[in-house]
Amino acid sequence: MTTVNGNFLKFPGVYLFQEIAHQVAAFKKTAPEKRVISLGIGDVTQPLAPAVIRALHSAVDEMGNAATFRGYGPEQGYAFLREAIAKNDYQDRGIKVDASEIFVSDGAKSDVGSIQELFSNDAVIAVTDPVYPVYVDSNVIAGRAGDYVNGKWSNIVYLPCTKANGFVPEFPKVRPDVIYLCYPNNPTGTVLTRDALKAWVDYARREGSVILYDSAYEAYITEPGVPHSIYEIEGAREVAIEFRSFSKTAGFTGLRCAYVVVPEELKISDGKGGQVALKPLWSRRNGTKYNGCPYIVQRAAEAVYSEEGKQEIRQTIGIYQKNAAVMHEGLTRMGLEVIGGKNAPYLWVATPEGTDSWGFFHKVLENAAVVCTPGVGFGAAGEGYVRMTAFGSPADTVEALERLAKI
Amino acid sequence: MTTVNGNFLKFPGVYLFQEIAHQVAAFKKTAPEKRVISLGIGDVTQPLAPAVIRALHSAVDEMGNAATFRGYGPEQGYAFLREAIAKNDYQDRGIKVDASEIFVSDGAKSDVGSIQELFSNDAVIAVTDPVYPVYVDSNVIAGRAGDYVNGKWSNIVYLPCTKANGFVPEFPKVRPDVIYLCYPNNPTGTVLTRDALKAWVDYARREGSVILYDSAYEAYITEPGVPHSIYEIEGAREVAIEFRSFSKTAGFTGLRCAYVVVPEELKISDGKGGQVALKPLWSRRNGTKYNGCPYIVQRAAEAVYSEEGKQEIRQTIGIYQKNAAVMHEGLTRMGLEVIGGKNAPYLWVATPEGTDSWGFFHKVLENAAVVCTPGVGFGAAGEGYVRMTAFGSPADTVEALERLAKI
Repeated sequence: MTTVNGNFLKFPGVYLFQEIAHQVAAFKKTAPEKRVISLGIGDVTQPLAPAVIRALHSAVDEMGNAATFRGYGPEQGYAFLREAIAKNDYQDRGIKVDASEIFVSDGAKSDVGSIQELFSNDAVIAVTDPVYPVYVDSNVIAGRAGDYVNGKWSNIVYLPCTKANGFVPEFPKVRPDVIYLCYPNNPTGTVLTRDALKAWVDYARREGSVILYDSAYEAYITEPGVPHSIYEIEGAREVAIEFRSFSKTAGFTGLRCAYVVVPEELKISDGKGGQVALKPLWSRRNGTKYNGCPYIVQRAAEAVYSEEGKQEIRQTIGIYQKNAAVMHEGLTRMGLEVIGGKNAPYLWVATPEGTDSWGFFHKVLENAAVVCTPGVGFGAAGEGYVRMTAFGSPADTVEALERLAKI
Repeated sequence: MTTVNGNFLKFPGVYLFQEIAHQVAAFKKTAPEKRVISLGIGDVTQPLAPAVIRALHSAVDEMGNAATFRGYGPEQGYAFLREAIAKNDYQDRGIKVDASEIFVSDGAKSDVGSIQELFSNDAVIAVTDPVYPVYVDSNVIAGRAGDYVNGKWSNIVYLPCTKANGFVPEFPKVRPDVIYLCYPNNPTGTVLTRDALKAWVDYARREGSVILYDSAYEAYITEPGVPHSIYEIEGAREVAIEFRSFSKTAGFTGLRCAYVVVPEELKISDGKGGQVALKPLWSRRNGTKYNGCPYIVQRAAEAVYSEEGKQEIRQTIGIYQKNAAVMHEGLTRMGLEVIGGKNAPYLWVATPEGTDSWGFFHKVLENAAVVCTPGVGFGAAGEGYVRMTAFGSPADTVEALERLAKI
C-alpha cells in the first residue's frame, strides 16, 4: 500500500490559527449574544485603496476584450510590476536590487513555505523563538525538523528572543545552514537595529549560512535607523533572500500578492565542491510548480506605487499605527507590560503573573469576548505572552480596550 | 557552507516551455518581419465571458468598501464556490462529491506540483509516456525520480502510450504507489473509455495504489461514454484524487483558479500498520503553505456556473473545438497522421518519416513561423510527434494551416 509522508503525523495538533478559530467558534456557541472582537489573526480591515480599485476595474476590462486579454503571464511576474518594485522599494532608497531578481507571487506564506525546497534535506534550520509557525512547519513537512519533544523540534536550532536579551537573538552554539529572521518581528513587534542586523549578515558570511529575511511589515517602521531591507547591509546580497508582501502594506490579504528577492550573488554549495546560484533554481522551482500571480492582481499591486496609491496606503497604515499607539497606551495603563507596536502592527503583551498564554487567551475571550493569540503558539519562549494586532477598525480597537480594562 | 537540494542539479535542461520560448525568441531575432503564430503552449486567446467580467467588477467594488471588504479567506476556498463546484460539476451529473472535499487553488500546476508532498520519499511514481512534465519534475525536485539516464529517470515507472497500444497505458510490471493519469490527455489528446478507466481504478484498488487524475480538459469531451470524472467509476473515491481547472474551461489561464477533490474515503498506509486519510493532510499542507485564491477570482469562478456563464463558456469552448476540427482535417489532408483533437484541445501529430520532434519543430518555425511543441519534450515515447493546440484564434489557426500546407 502507498505510504504517507510520515512527517505530517509528527505535528502535535492543528495549525495555530485553525485551533484559535476552533476555540472562538466554540465560545460563540456558548455566548451567541456577544460580539467577538478579534485582535488575534493579523488580518486587515480597511478596504483597498481607491487607486488599487481603479487599477483592478481597468485590468478586468482588459480581460474582457480579445485585443487586450492576457493568458498565462511570466511565472516570475510581469516586468511592469517587477520594475515598479525594484524602483520604489529599493533603488529610490539607494538599495541595489534589479527587477530581474524579483519573483512576484500569490503570497509571502507560499514563498516562505516553499523556499526550503532549495536546500538539502539535512540542512540545519534556525528560527527565532517565538516565531511565525510557517517557517518551522514547512520544514517539518520536508523532514528537517526531527521529532516534537517537550514543545520543541529536535533538529531545529532555536534562537530565544526574551526580555533577558532584549528580544534580539544571539548567535547559536550549533552553526545553522539556514536562518529565518523576520523584522519587524511577528509576533513580538520588535525590530533589529542596523548594527544588530549587520552582525547577523556578518555571521552568515563568516559561517556560510543563508538568511531568509521576512520583511513583510517594513511599512510599519516609524523610527529612523531601523533597516527596511536586509540589502541596506553591506554583503547581504551574498547571503540573504528577502520576502515582502502587499498584504499588510496595502491591505492585500484577500487579493494575494507578494514577492521574493533572490540576488544574483547568492550562491551555496553544490555538494560536489563547487557553488551554485540560487536565483535560477528558484526560477526552476516556480517554472515547475507555479503559474504566476493573476494579471489583474499584478496591475493592482502596480497601482500601490502610483502617487495616489502611495498616499492612500500611507493613510491606511496610519490608521493601524494609531491603533497600535492607542493599544500600547491603554494596555500599559492597565498595568500590563507591552513590547513592540512602535515599528510593527504587533504588540507582545506579557500575561499577568500566574496566568499562562492560553489561560490569558481564554480569560479575555470569555470575559471580554476579545480574541488574542497565545504567545506559546509561536514557540516555547512565547509562553507568558499574547500577541495582539493593530489591524482592527479604530472603533473596535477602542471598544476592545474598554472591555479589557473592565477585567 | 549551506548545501543545495542536489535534485535541482539533475535536470538535463530548462523546463520544456521555457526552452521553446527561448528558441522562438532566437528565431524572431533572425526574422523580425515574420509574425509568429503559436500552436505550441496551451494558452487560450478568447476573452473572459461577460458573466465572469461582471462578477469581477462587482467583487472589486466589494473590496473597495469597508462594509464588504474581505481579507484572508478560508485556505480551502469560500463555501459559495465549493458548493457551486460540487453541485454543477458532480452532483448534477449524478457523481458523489461533497463541497467539503473540494480544495480551491490558484491553478492545477500548483496542485499537481505539490500533491506529491503527501507521499513518502520512497514512493514509486508512475507516469504515462508522453506526459505533462510537471508530474515528473515535481518528483525530481522531491528526490523520488532517481537519475536522468538516456532520456529517462531511473526510478520513474513509465507507461508508454503509443500507436501500438492505441495510446492506452498498460499495467506496469513494477507496482507503483502513485499513478498520474491525465484524461483527456495532454499531450496526445486521447481519452480513456469508461472500461479502460475502470480497469485502472480496479488495478489501484487491488494494488493499493493512488491515482492522481488530472481532468483539466474534461470540458472538451464531445463523445458519449467518455468519463468526465474518475468518480464516475465505482470505487474511485477510495483510490483517486481529481484535479480540475478553470483555465481551459473558462479561459482563466491569466486569472488563476483550479480545484482538487480529495474524497473522505481515500486512505493510505501510515507506515506503522495503520491507515491515514489524505483529506486532512492536504488541508494541513495548504494551511501551512497557502493562503487561498483571491476572493475576486473565486467570485469569477462562481459566475462560470451561472446560467449566462455556462452558455458563454460553452460558446468559447465551441470556438476551440471548431479550431481542433479544422486542424484535424487540414493536417490530415497534408498527409500527416493526426491523433486526438476530438475530445481534447490537443492534436498529436506524427512527424514525417526521417524528421524527429525537434527537427519538425524547427522546420515549421523556420519555414512557416508556426510554433508547435516537440513531442519528445513530453517523454521518450513522444519522439516522432509534435503537439499542436486548438487555442489560437480561428483566423490564426486557419492561417497557420495555410502556411503549413505550403511546406
